[in-house]
Amino acid sequence: MATQKKKKKYIYFFGEGKAEGKASMKDLLGGKGAGLAEMTNLGIRVPPGFTISTEACIAYFGNRGKYPAGMWEDLLTNLNRLEKVMGMTFGDPRTPLLVSVRSGARASMPGMMDTVLNLGLNDQTIQGLILKSGSERFAFDTYRRFITMFGSVVMNVKRDLFEKLLEEKKRMLGAALDTDLRVDALKDLVREYKDMVFSETKTKFPEDPMEQLKMSVNAVFESWFGNRAVTYRKLNNIPDTWGTAVNIVAMVFGNMGETSGTGVAFTRDPNSGERKFFGEFLFNAQGEDVVAGIRTPLPISALAKRLPRAYKDLVFIYKKLEKYYRDMCDIEFTVQEGKLYMLQTRVGKRTAAAAIKMAVDMSREGMIDQKEAVLRIDPAQLDQLLHPTIDGSADLKVVAKGLPASPGAAAGVITFTAEESERMAELGEKVILVRTETSPEDIGGMHAAQGILTARGGMTSHAAVVARGMGKCCVVGCSSLVIDEENKTVRIGDLVLREGAFITLNGSTGEVIIGKVPLVRPKLSKEFKTLMGWVDKIRRLGIRTNADTPHDARVAREFGAEGIGLCRTEHMFFNDERIKAVREMILADQTGGRKKALAKLLPYQKNDFIGIFKEMNGFPVTIRLLDPPLHEFLPHTDAELKALSLDMGVSFEALSQKNKSLHEFNPMLGHRGCRLGITFPEIYEMQVQAIFEAACGLKKEKYRVIPEIMIPLVAHVREFEMMKELVDRIGKEVMDGYKIKVDYRVGTMIELPRAALVADQIAKTAEFFSFGTNDLTQTTFGLSRDDAGKFLPVYIEKNILPQDPFVSIDQDGVGALIRLGVEKGRSARKDLKTGICGEHGGEPLSVEFCHKIGLHYVSCSPYRVPIARLAAARAAILYPKK
Amino acid sequence: MATQKKKKKYIYFFGEGKAEGKASMKDLLGGKGAGLAEMTNLGIRVPPGFTISTEACIAYFGNRGKYPAGMWEDLLTNLNRLEKVMGMTFGDPRTPLLVSVRSGARASMPGMMDTVLNLGLNDQTIQGLILKSGSERFAFDTYRRFITMFGSVVMNVKRDLFEKLLEEKKRMLGAALDTDLRVDALKDLVREYKDMVFSETKTKFPEDPMEQLKMSVNAVFESWFGNRAVTYRKLNNIPDTWGTAVNIVAMVFGNMGETSGTGVAFTRDPNSGERKFFGEFLFNAQGEDVVAGIRTPLPISALAKRLPRAYKDLVFIYKKLEKYYRDMCDIEFTVQEGKLYMLQTRVGKRTAAAAIKMAVDMSREGMIDQKEAVLRIDPAQLDQLLHPTIDGSADLKVVAKGLPASPGAAAGVITFTAEESERMAELGEKVILVRTETSPEDIGGMHAAQGILTARGGMTSHAAVVARGMGKCCVVGCSSLVIDEENKTVRIGDLVLREGAFITLNGSTGEVIIGKVPLVRPKLSKEFKTLMGWVDKIRRLGIRTNADTPHDARVAREFGAEGIGLCRTEHMFFNDERIKAVREMILADQTGGRKKALAKLLPYQKNDFIGIFKEMNGFPVTIRLLDPPLHEFLPHTDAELKALSLDMGVSFEALSQKNKSLHEFNPMLGHRGCRLGITFPEIYEMQVQAIFEAACGLKKEKYRVIPEIMIPLVAHVREFEMMKELVDRIGKEVMDGYKIKVDYRVGTMIELPRAALVADQIAKTAEFFSFGTNDLTQTTFGLSRDDAGKFLPVYIEKNILPQDPFVSIDQDGVGALIRLGVEKGRSARKDLKTGICGEHGGEPLSVEFCHKIGLHYVSCSPYRVPIARLAAARAAILYPKK
Repeated sequence: MATQKKKKKYIYFFGEGKAEGKASMKDLLGGKGAGLAEMTNLGIRVPPGFTISTEACIAYFGNRGKYPAGMWEDLLTNLNRLEKVMGMTFGDPRTPLLVSVRSGARASMPGMMDTVLNLGLNDQTIQGLILKSGSERFAFDTYRRFITMFGSVVMNVKRDLFEKLLEEKKRMLGAALDTDLRVDALKDLVREYKDMVFSETKTKFPEDPMEQLKMSVNAVFESWFGNRAVTYRKLNNIPDTWGTAVNIVAMVFGNMGETSGTGVAFTRDPNSGERKFFGEFLFNAQGEDVVAGIRTPLPISALAKRLPRAYKDLVFIYKKLEKYYRDMCDIEFTVQEGKLYMLQTRVGKRTAAAAIKMAVDMSREGMIDQKEAVLRIDPAQLDQLLHPTIDGSADLKVVAKGLPASPGAAAGVITFTAEESERMAELGEKVILVRTETSPEDIGGMHAAQGILTARGGMTSHAAVVARGMGKCCVVGCSSLVIDEENKTVRIGDLVLREGAFITLNGSTGEVIIGKVPLVRPKLSKEFKTLMGWVDKIRRLGIRTNADTPHDARVAREFGAEGIGLCRTEHMFFNDERIKAVREMILADQTGGRKKALAKLLPYQKNDFIGIFKEMNGFPVTIRLLDPPLHEFLPHTDAELKALSLDMGVSFEALSQKNKSLHEFNPMLGHRGCRLGITFPEIYEMQVQAIFEAACGLKKEKYRVIPEIMIPLVAHVREFEMMKELVDRIGKEVMDGYKIKVDYRVGTMIELPRAALVADQIAKTAEFFSFGTNDLTQTTFGLSRDDAGKFLPVYIEKNILPQDPFVSIDQDGVGALIRLGVEKGRSARKDLKTGICGEHGGEPLSVEFCHKIGLHYVSCSPYRVPIARLAAARAAILYPKK
Repeated sequence: MATQKKKKKYIYFFGEGKAEGKASMKDLLGGKGAGLAEMTNLGIRVPPGFTISTEACIAYFGNRGKYPAGMWEDLLTNLNRLEKVMGMTFGDPRTPLLVSVRSGARASMPGMMDTVLNLGLNDQTIQGLILKSGSERFAFDTYRRFITMFGSVVMNVKRDLFEKLLEEKKRMLGAALDTDLRVDALKDLVREYKDMVFSETKTKFPEDPMEQLKMSVNAVFESWFGNRAVTYRKLNNIPDTWGTAVNIVAMVFGNMGETSGTGVAFTRDPNSGERKFFGEFLFNAQGEDVVAGIRTPLPISALAKRLPRAYKDLVFIYKKLEKYYRDMCDIEFTVQEGKLYMLQTRVGKRTAAAAIKMAVDMSREGMIDQKEAVLRIDPAQLDQLLHPTIDGSADLKVVAKGLPASPGAAAGVITFTAEESERMAELGEKVILVRTETSPEDIGGMHAAQGILTARGGMTSHAAVVARGMGKCCVVGCSSLVIDEENKTVRIGDLVLREGAFITLNGSTGEVIIGKVPLVRPKLSKEFKTLMGWVDKIRRLGIRTNADTPHDARVAREFGAEGIGLCRTEHMFFNDERIKAVREMILADQTGGRKKALAKLLPYQKNDFIGIFKEMNGFPVTIRLLDPPLHEFLPHTDAELKALSLDMGVSFEALSQKNKSLHEFNPMLGHRGCRLGITFPEIYEMQVQAIFEAACGLKKEKYRVIPEIMIPLVAHVREFEMMKELVDRIGKEVMDGYKIKVDYRVGTMIELPRAALVADQIAKTAEFFSFGTNDLTQTTFGLSRDDAGKFLPVYIEKNILPQDPFVSIDQDGVGALIRLGVEKGRSARKDLKTGICGEHGGEPLSVEFCHKIGLHYVSCSPYRVPIARLAAARAAILYPKK
């Protein structure tokens, strides 16, 4: 004897001022269903209907495409209830009930089945519609709309085919607008549509309203796993397991003549954020006319003029909704013969600028508090505000698309080499550096360029990382480019561009555009400054920047950085005269020769540090001693080596021999970082001397200098101890010479798994840890970011990795090591200073993670400093404990 | 008012049948001091004396080269006591006490100051010696010996200079032996020696016996940090903090004529282990004459003949000592006028073969039990027994020296390419493959060769690892070789060798020898087999082997392997026809083309597995699916590509393009391991099919086949899950086809830090873990073993790393990850099978570590299987808990 299980509720009714659902049931009813229920409860006029829950959708997929037990019966019961409320009957030829069927997931999701209106029509029920409306034309207009939507959305007939027949009809009859077509023409169209659907699908257009309904519900469910929906979810980190709800709502008609119509509106301006009602309305139309762009909608003021009653209702309702949702709402509505019906409400999307203005305004209006205002801003969105962007009104000729590696936009003439880029920039030309891929030697050229475009490389390739660091627009991995560096041309399909041709890059979309597109440099609003003031009061994490030059340091200070978390000294080695001395140093076989060459570098390095220390007066500056393998400073092709040989007066053979001897199979795991400092201590000695001389000199001028000297790539505690001895020794020598004491710290980058594992040993002598999450991710995953392009995209696509670990910290793996490093480090030194300085320092989820595990600061590129500040504040609100 | 601290005891007296020390106080008294004390306690006749403890030495260095408080006073007290016992007085011209001063650390340590004999002599005290001995000649012989030893050892005058004066004197006087010199000549020598010392050192030879004593004690202390001693300690992992003891012992004289003499002996034969007394004796001589090799010593039987009384005493004593020490002892003694004095005893060094014979014999004699017998054998030493070696009696012309990468010896003619090596080997020629460095393409040629010699690379370079795996003699990093592959010559200094020239390699020393040196293939003794039987009863760890071919599998089984822990499938891809199909597969741009090429490989792989499964009948075989990046299967130089282009009928441009597109910056962290399986599932599908077809076929023939399929380079649990699904799916298809069920397991290699960190997630589906310690070491340290050669030697030399982490598991770092992986893995799956399969699997300390953390097995190259078995047994004895 089976016990009767409590029947699962799959369907939620709304109508007559009462709903079974409410706004907070978004997960179950989807955004649309929850909105309709809530509006009903709020006493707002909404056509009655019911929502099939997301659970039903999930059960449907769990059940190999069958409805869960009882769902269909529930649906029929609710349909019956709807018939009663409406006083009409679904499929009845005299008083036919028509409905709309619309999908609605938790989050608004383009790519899913959208809407079927006027469902329930067939050759019988149309008679009832004619009878009730008294307008045969209206009825057939509605019928042809239904066939179009059902045919295209549910039966997958190309929408074009319907459009073509419609256009043909209009052309033949000389009708300018759809509304000019008369009833006979519409009748013909209905017949022609049905014939066409049959010839396309080999299936008769379903006449049975119940079959229409079932097919539509199935189509909504199935659209959850449609290609575009799946892609969208992947891109937006929406789980497949959420499912979608289905809303079945009694039709109201905007196409019943000039006192009817349909509209969409925002309770505030979604572009600027201004507090003004913003919307559009189309008379004698149904919703899809707005979307399809067949007629141009009128501003919402037209409604106020022509149907003031309905408009007054609308104003009353939108204010009610905004107050209720405590946020800007995006609403849809229909006016049927002068009477307003609300069809949808949800919190509306907005630009970054608008989001900030609204949040600050609403906080001031007393609608939300400052913390909520901060939570309203998506940190990732801020990026939009911080870089120049393409003028939206411009006409664009997009010729290629790569990865959007560093946001913003840039226009300029093509150059193919870093030298040429520098030369032309000196002449005042704006240039775009186009390379197959970039290397550290290109830094100068990258600096000089407005933007960088590469044919290879991923979001974390050299070009991408450096460009982001510079806040410079960059598009990478644009694989359709065929670059011929010798002949100085780049081919894109049939198009061949030469050096000097004008192109524009959109670093936010990855688009490559022919010609010079006007750019807009956004100004930061006063609301932005207000909000960032609140942010800084709330956050616990310090925000520093990764900056290698006084210029970057200044930009970062303007963006609110509280010090430098990573100053890479190797970029200083590439400029002009210096690279010559660096190469002399590399070519010297003896310590003596190296020292001589290093002595030439000393004044340059010292000046670099003076410039940076001045900009960061009063703030700490973490300087990483030389990190990259020496071969990065030598050119690699025979041609370049020959040129260098002439320039340096060293034989080509000797240079080429040196190059070979420095070659590494895995440079990432090679002779770099403190391994250089240990094998060639004179290099680090020079750098430390430069730091202390700069610091001592400035201290005499009353600057507050706080150098933090960072030893890279430590794996074993002895490496750190030896290098700390070196720093302390040279530091003392210089300070004794100047008779000045500088407060300094010596710490290490934790960027190898081993360092995290023995962090307790290292923290005995190290005064700070900076987690180098780029390299730590590479070694923990065994994944070279330069090579990952061949398989990482497949990994993301196949959902093996939820996201690119070079973009957002892999919390399970790399994060576990960081936690361990922090715990072990603090077990040995209670006041150990901890931060991160990888690319992740400016990524909101990673910032949140750093907050949660109690780091002292994050460091990121200058242009991401505001993003990190905001993310840190949000984390402090959401996770207040630590 | 300072309280009086209990005075620290620095000096231990022995004499008159009683000693303050004993054998177990070796750490404090050094090996020599403890032996002298113990012999005294045992009632054996030892000249009295005293030992300055190692603590005094440590305090001396802690004290910047000053004696610790009270030490000198203690020394004087003990000297006084010694004078009383001897009835003589140090420095007294009538009854002068003479002493020897000898160093003695815990472990016998070449490179430290050894011995000063006859200390206390000067122009006054010699009169007493003449008086007492009645022989002026004896006294002056003793005096010239003292000046030589003190001058060279304490005052650092080159020993040659003394020898030269002595030889000159003998030549002038026509004396054949030292003993032929008469007293006047000796007197002259004493004067000449002193003059020479003065002119060399600008210091007068010290006349004051007390000064002589102090200088000698200092010299012993200082020698602890002498270059050779430091180097020796580094090589043998002896800590600097041990310090050395100093022994000051009353002189007995072996140079008092023909009833006197000096000897050394072993209580058993140290070469063969045979139970027979083995020693040498020199009449009328002091100890250093034996060492210096001036006269050839006689076999110990000469003593039995000429001084039977003394010999009888000696026999009585050696038996007593062996019984007391329960081991073969190495003894030193002097006979003074017929009376035997023991000067030293310690457990003696022995060859591996002797060690085994002695251990087994002594256990059978009831002297020690089986466990102790096992503990007596150093696993590392076994290597000697398992490889052919150079005939010690041969005359060697060593022309170069590299790193001893894989032990044993090999002789053959030089070839410069793998192909030539294979070709000549087929013709029956023995060849040595000489390459700048090897790559996986050379495997065939390496297999065919007797030995491998490379100019580049370290102990863990490709050549080294593969050669050790093959049990093949290999010398790497022999930097004095200049190889001209084009002209097929190798230059070593002025010497030029052409292809076909004969050379011999000593893989145990790194020596390269011109010509063909006779080799000795050692047979494994019956004692070896007995001992290994005991070993297998004792050990808890299973021992498997890394083997890729039926031949290797057979060798490993003969050495006692209980299964294969790592069968690398990529080596199977290189042979003959197969590489062509592999290349076709790589060049195919579509899945279809790849499948076609893979279908050609299937029968080969299947046959490989059949051969291996047969050899391992009844034992598990862990097969790793394809691991290396695909570019390893393509040639790299233009010339090779051109040849391949002709051979395959594919354009050079296409090949070269493919090569470029496959290029990786860091192949170690690139597109390899399961990343290949995920992007090209058809490759793994073919391999799994081959495994199951082989297994099903053999099962029909009643073989017991236990395949364990291993997914390489897993970082994220989803990678493993997807690959396990693939294995299960293909496995089921094949088994369904054969209608046979094969017991198989699917597991993963834990070789990336992330895998260890999320081992609990992975163990939910993985049935076994095999820790790939090679790659895990590379990623944990961020250290490419191919590139480490540039700095790792400096790291070892500067004591930054205690040892090469590619040789012995880095227990603090890599070991911590392994522990974590095991713990987390077992938390998710209680019966998770765990093992290691890196190069470390055959290294004794690493095996001990694996035992301690409770792994189920280690896997190593076939020739190291006995070493691993022994190491596992020793670990089980020393750490019985787990």
